[in-house]
Amino acid sequence: MKLRPLHDRVIIKRLEAETKSAGGIVIPDAAAEKPIKGEVIAVGTGKILDDGKVRPMAVKAGDTVLFGKYSGTEVKVDGEELLVMREEDLVAVIEK
Amino acid sequence: MKLRPLHDRVIIKRLEAETKSAGGIVIPDAAAEKPIKGEVIAVGTGKILDDGKVRPMAVKAGDTVLFGKYSGTEVKVDGEELLVMREEDLVAVIEK
Amino acid sequence: MKLRPLHDRVIIKRLEAETKSAGGIVIPDAAAEKPIKGEVIAVGTGKILDDGKVRPMAVKAGDTVLFGKYSGTEVKVDGEELLVMREEDLVAVIEK
Amino acid sequence: MKLRPLHDRVIIKRLEAETKSAGGIVIPDAAAEKPIKGEVIAVGTGKILDDGKVRPMAVKAGDTVLFGKYSGTEVKVDGEELLVMREEDLVAVIEK
Amino acid sequence: MKLRPLHDRVIIKRLEAETKSAGGIVIPDAAAEKPIKGEVIAVGTGKILDDGKVRPMAVKAGDTVLFGKYSGTEVKVDGEELLVMREEDLVAVIEK
Amino acid sequence: MKLRPLHDRVIIKRLEAETKSAGGIVIPDAAAEKPIKGEVIAVGTGKILDDGKVRPMAVKAGDTVLFGKYSGTEVKVDGEELLVMREEDLVAVIEK
Amino acid sequence: MKLRPLHDRVIIKRLEAETKSAGGIVIPDAAAEKPIKGEVIAVGTGKILDDGKVRPMAVKAGDTVLFGKYSGTEVKVDGEELLVMREEDLVAVIEK
Repeated sequence: MKLRPLHDRVIIKRLEAETKSAGGIVIPDAAAEKPIKGEVIAVGTGKILDDGKVRPMAVKAGDTVLFGKYSGTEVKVDGEELLVMREEDLVAVIEK
Repeated sequence: MKLRPLHDRVIIKRLEAETKSAGGIVIPDAAAEKPIKGEVIAVGTGKILDDGKVRPMAVKAGDTVLFGKYSGTEVKVDGEELLVMREEDLVAVIEK
Repeated sequence: MKLRPLHDRVIIKRLEAETKSAGGIVIPDAAAEKPIKGEVIAVGTGKILDDGKVRPMAVKAGDTVLFGKYSGTEVKVDGEELLVMREEDLVAVIEK
Repeated sequence: MKLRPLHDRVIIKRLEAETKSAGGIVIPDAAAEKPIKGEVIAVGTGKILDDGKVRPMAVKAGDTVLFGKYSGTEVKVDGEELLVMREEDLVAVIEK
Repeated sequence: MKLRPLHDRVIIKRLEAETKSAGGIVIPDAAAEKPIKGEVIAVGTGKILDDGKVRPMAVKAGDTVLFGKYSGTEVKVDGEELLVMREEDLVAVIEK
Repeated sequence: MKLRPLHDRVIIKRLEAETKSAGGIVIPDAAAEKPIKGEVIAVGTGKILDDGKVRPMAVKAGDTVLFGKYSGTEVKVDGEELLVMREEDLVAVIEK
Repeated sequence: MKLRPLHDRVIIKRLEAETKSAGGIVIPDAAAEKPIKGEVIAVGTGKILDDGKVRPMAVKAGDTVLFGKYSGTEVKVDGEELLVMREEDLVAVIEK
């Protein structure tokens, strides 16, 4: 059983901020604030433009991404908390 | 007697969150919060674009979908509570 | 004497919710809440699109429709309370 | 001396609600509420669309119309109170 | 020294409301309310549309116009109070 | 060292209002209000339209302009306070 | 490990305001206000327009830029605080 995002939506699994990483990304860790780094679990087929064409997605499953603090809708799949948001809400891909 | 949604609207029947599913989707179950998982009962013919073309729907009757917590208008058909919303308000299809 | 709606507007006559219908549509009946089911009395010629073309209406006089709770402007014709709203505010047609 | 509305604007003279008409339009007559039925006095040449074309007006001088309660800007011509609004704010024409 | 409005802007000189005109335009004269009738002093070259074309102005210098009560930015030229606003904020031309 | 505005932005140096000018522009001088007249210091290359074309600027360096009271972002260059705003925020050019 | 901004986003490293620069840019230094000058660290591939074409970026890595005070999302990379924002939020490039 899995989620298939519609159009330009992506499904994200939050990654904990590595607060003491030596060379990694560190997300500010305000109390009660959830991490804004995550792994893309699934992506939609792309945004349908006004003329009917489909704009392909700029991220793919497996990408590590940063997103806005208040972005997305939370759902639980198999006991795991996931986020569904628009590609628009993603700000950057973290390249390894 | 049945409902025919207009344009890009869909009619949804809420599905109870399976709070203890072993391998299924579990929706957070805050007190007084209604489930945000549902079954598509009927779909419109699609959104009419500005140039008159019709954008076909990305979901069909029978699909299990997730949607935003505050999405849709509630109606009762044959004693059953249904939701009418835009396809836009659906975030993902749950594949079996 | 009758009303001719402009562009994509429709004129609606509210239908009382059949609170105890055996197989019919039942609209939630909160105190002081007006029914959101109605009969289409008249329709405009359609929305004029940006390129000058006219998008035909998806409903016609005689249709039974559901609409948003706060939709439309109320007017009285021959002592009868009517609603004028945009086709956009209609969510579904109830088929018999 | 007369007013020439610009683009898609219309000039309206309010008509008193006929509170006891036998077969006529009756507008709800809440205290301190102005009538929302009026006669079209003058119309503009039409809305200029984004591609430069002009969309002709759907009403003409002499038409009796209904409009939104808070629509328009009030002006006085020859001691007579008039309203200037966009055609968009008109909801229906009352046909005789 | 004079003002050249940009694009679709117009420069207006307010005209006092002729409160007791026999056959003229009378603007409501609420205390502390400035007149909403004015003379066009200068006009821009027209709005630049999205495709680069210029939409010519519908008013010209010398026209007497009505405008929205809160429209425009006030400036003083040679001790005279003027208003700069968009053509969009003008509602009608008063023809003589 | 100088500023190059992006797209349709302009850099403005405020000019003091000449409160007692005999024949010049006088800007209302409310206490604590900054002048809304300025000199254009630099302009961008123009707004990039949706189809990729560039709309050239309607003002150039050296122009004296009027702008909205709350327009722009303040920056200091070489101890001098400047404003960066969109051409859209300019209302008129003062011709000499 | 580095960040790849999506679409028209840029990654910025704030530069401290040089409060006493002889010939440099000085940013107002209100208490508790962060500098609004920064260095571009990475840029996206450009905004995808409605017709699918890509609008190239007007800034490149290495550029020194000014941006709006409240622009962007803060992230930490290798212990360094960075900002991710849209090119739209940049107001000017500081040329050396």
